[in-house]
Amino acid sequence: MIEAVVDTLRPLLGDRVSTAAAVREHHGRDEGWHPPAPPDAVVFAESTEDVVAVVRACSSSGVPVIPFGVGTSLEGNIAAIRGGLTIDLSRMTSVLEVNVDDLDCRVQAGVTRAALNRVVARDGLFFPIDPGADATLGGMAATRASGTNAVRYGTMKDNVLGLTAVLADGAVVRTGTRAKKSSAGYDLTRLLVGSEGTLGVITEVALRLYGLPEVIGGAVCSFATLDGAVRTVIEAIQLGIPVARLELLDEVQVDACNRYSGIDLPVTPLLLVEFHGSPAAVDDQAAAFAGLAAGHGGDGWRWSTDAAERERLWTARHEAYYAAKAMRPNALAIPTDVCVPISRLAQCILETRADIDASGLTAPIVGHVGDGNFHVLVLFDPTDAEEVASAHRLNERVIVRAQALGGTCTGEHGIGCGKLEFMAGEHDPTALAMMASIKRALDPGGIMNPGKVIPHVEG
Amino acid sequence: MIEAVVDTLRPLLGDRVSTAAAVREHHGRDEGWHPPAPPDAVVFAESTEDVVAVVRACSSSGVPVIPFGVGTSLEGNIAAIRGGLTIDLSRMTSVLEVNVDDLDCRVQAGVTRAALNRVVARDGLFFPIDPGADATLGGMAATRASGTNAVRYGTMKDNVLGLTAVLADGAVVRTGTRAKKSSAGYDLTRLLVGSEGTLGVITEVALRLYGLPEVIGGAVCSFATLDGAVRTVIEAIQLGIPVARLELLDEVQVDACNRYSGIDLPVTPLLLVEFHGSPAAVDDQAAAFAGLAAGHGGDGWRWSTDAAERERLWTARHEAYYAAKAMRPNALAIPTDVCVPISRLAQCILETRADIDASGLTAPIVGHVGDGNFHVLVLFDPTDAEEVASAHRLNERVIVRAQALGGTCTGEHGIGCGKLEFMAGEHDPTALAMMASIKRALDPGGIMNPGKVIPHVEG
Repeated sequence: MIEAVVDTLRPLLGDRVSTAAAVREHHGRDEGWHPPAPPDAVVFAESTEDVVAVVRACSSSGVPVIPFGVGTSLEGNIAAIRGGLTIDLSRMTSVLEVNVDDLDCRVQAGVTRAALNRVVARDGLFFPIDPGADATLGGMAATRASGTNAVRYGTMKDNVLGLTAVLADGAVVRTGTRAKKSSAGYDLTRLLVGSEGTLGVITEVALRLYGLPEVIGGAVCSFATLDGAVRTVIEAIQLGIPVARLELLDEVQVDACNRYSGIDLPVTPLLLVEFHGSPAAVDDQAAAFAGLAAGHGGDGWRWSTDAAERERLWTARHEAYYAAKAMRPNALAIPTDVCVPISRLAQCILETRADIDASGLTAPIVGHVGDGNFHVLVLFDPTDAEEVASAHRLNERVIVRAQALGGTCTGEHGIGCGKLEFMAGEHDPTALAMMASIKRALDPGGIMNPGKVIPHVEG
Repeated sequence: MIEAVVDTLRPLLGDRVSTAAAVREHHGRDEGWHPPAPPDAVVFAESTEDVVAVVRACSSSGVPVIPFGVGTSLEGNIAAIRGGLTIDLSRMTSVLEVNVDDLDCRVQAGVTRAALNRVVARDGLFFPIDPGADATLGGMAATRASGTNAVRYGTMKDNVLGLTAVLADGAVVRTGTRAKKSSAGYDLTRLLVGSEGTLGVITEVALRLYGLPEVIGGAVCSFATLDGAVRTVIEAIQLGIPVARLELLDEVQVDACNRYSGIDLPVTPLLLVEFHGSPAAVDDQAAAFAGLAAGHGGDGWRWSTDAAERERLWTARHEAYYAAKAMRPNALAIPTDVCVPISRLAQCILETRADIDASGLTAPIVGHVGDGNFHVLVLFDPTDAEEVASAHRLNERVIVRAQALGGTCTGEHGIGCGKLEFMAGEHDPTALAMMASIKRALDPGGIMNPGKVIPHVEG
């Protein structure tokens, strides 16, 4: 079947259709720990029309279609586990519109977050959603990504104003209007955000932008204990201090970041915190936060409004996953991604820390704790069966605990194929059946990124 | 058919099933201008289980099911235009949980916004979404409502964390987790928010809460011209001044509010503005805003942090629709509800004002202009055919203009049956087909609030 599809597409796309082994292998692997699953062919799309042609060809042949940005997903979201054709959108890099007056923009799906920020910075604007990797905005929309600024600015759910997507039959849907809100019909935008390519291939994204804050003040604060750091976070959120970023690194992660990114943070549990606003507002917020930290054994409060220093620090934070992996060359990492109600965060993190200690594994903790979201980066040697099993047991315990505390198995990485088994622990059977109904209605042939997100539904 | 359903339900629900004419008529009419369409019977539900029993009975007989809160919708959203059974949820008034530490709560669908705020105020919290009417939170979720605080706190889309709903086959779905964010599967919460009962009957709602601001400062500012007021709004939004509320009343609306609510605002175009935050932050914001207003002919800047005065003012604002209707006893009002990109707001409002003047109709303008959302309350005598036609022409011109400017036909009232005809001007055919597919998949018998939201789909 795939040969016929490739033959159909070749006249249209020329050498932008590839079945070369190296190209296929590159597209079968993301940055996670899952075994690679290369597609049978890869198409490099340059336009929505290219994607339409590919989806139509696949649709009539029943060939799976997998969208691919730059491959920075973590849960096998892009793995071609049933073969098929991967659509690489990384050449769709046009920033189509920047509407300074409306604080919004429209970009092709292959634009990365850093590329967008370089463009809009000229107008004094920024886009706040920042997963660790420099992911594409289409991929970020598809996985409902967030990052360090979500505590203040929300996630992709809150910042995607509309989408263009190619549906399973090749039809192009454009969702949303340019108004900031609407009550006109079903929220197709938010149905597609987080659907991980299982309902359609996102080809364009309209996004909210924000004015660069008048002042950005940042601080690093060391704590004698993990508990002290987490309790500071909880109180700050409960008091409604409008932190822009609020990140936790345990001492293992700090040590890894120091080595990998060439910085010299004190090797203790740390909070990285940032405030955005007018000078007076930032001063107010920082003083309130510093007071809470001091009450929980925080010391070494280092305050800075220096942009270069801040940049170094946040670059290190964004590199945390790579830094953790570099602690053990050849190791893989399960980047668990739980998120719990803030009232349960201390219990969840401290019990998790005890689990890690009992496991004997190396597993730094890092996370967007202002949201109740954290990652345990569980390092394991994939050639050591016992360690593999131990890592998976730890991952499962972290997830089951978070779900029991009212939380989720993934705050921002998505389900992919890596977390399918945990969906039933989180959603009731009716919710899963409702998702499956929607999937069947919009993709009756089951060709859109099959085997992802929805358990037991594929055709 | 309906008789059989009523006979089935009677043993279970006793006198909570009614076919009395007065009860049916009360439930066939909302606060809008549409002709009443009473259901064949009304059930007063007291629990999710009651709703399940009703939907099951209706499902097996193909009888339409219409959810009803307190009847404050404006676009015939609750009209039983194909007969059937209305489920009145207004007795489901339990606040099930208030989680102070997590700033969230869970309520039954019949709790009104004012009732919730009375409960959570004890803990220093508030729920910001405030349509003019004291609507139920279930109804507000169903119509994706917003109100005066949306410019700062978002709409129901942003503040509903999860839902319990009864689907067309009587199954109960519970969406969302208690975590603040999740990437685990399709966003069923936001699919149900704004679906106006066409996919399920919402019986419980989990909501975000906020700490009462440390300081609330409010101001009233008069303008010599409508243009000056609107340009002040646009600049404030573009500069990112974090206003909590930002409302426009034209002089016709001000006059109506003065008479109806017993206040004495200067009869000119007015902005009502409110700031929330620390004392320093509120001062900063107010000073920045006052500067913009002065640059556009704003004067009479009246500043107050007095809670009682503020309460009087916002009560009057919330009563604006009733105040407008009181200008002409026996008149009806089309409460148009367009929302446009902020860059188009001045053009949209000024051209609309010219339209109103040309029409000869009385039609005050009031709105949540910080969102780009405003209402023209088009008064008309329903017994005067010429005036009816003229009012509809004006409504249509307002909507078509907003859509041409990239906006929406409804910012917050929903589609109901009153705006069905405008869906095609806003959504492309693929988007409408996608909505219809979802509707058919989740309600194959077409019993859930038929004839609403989705054009040309009902069974």
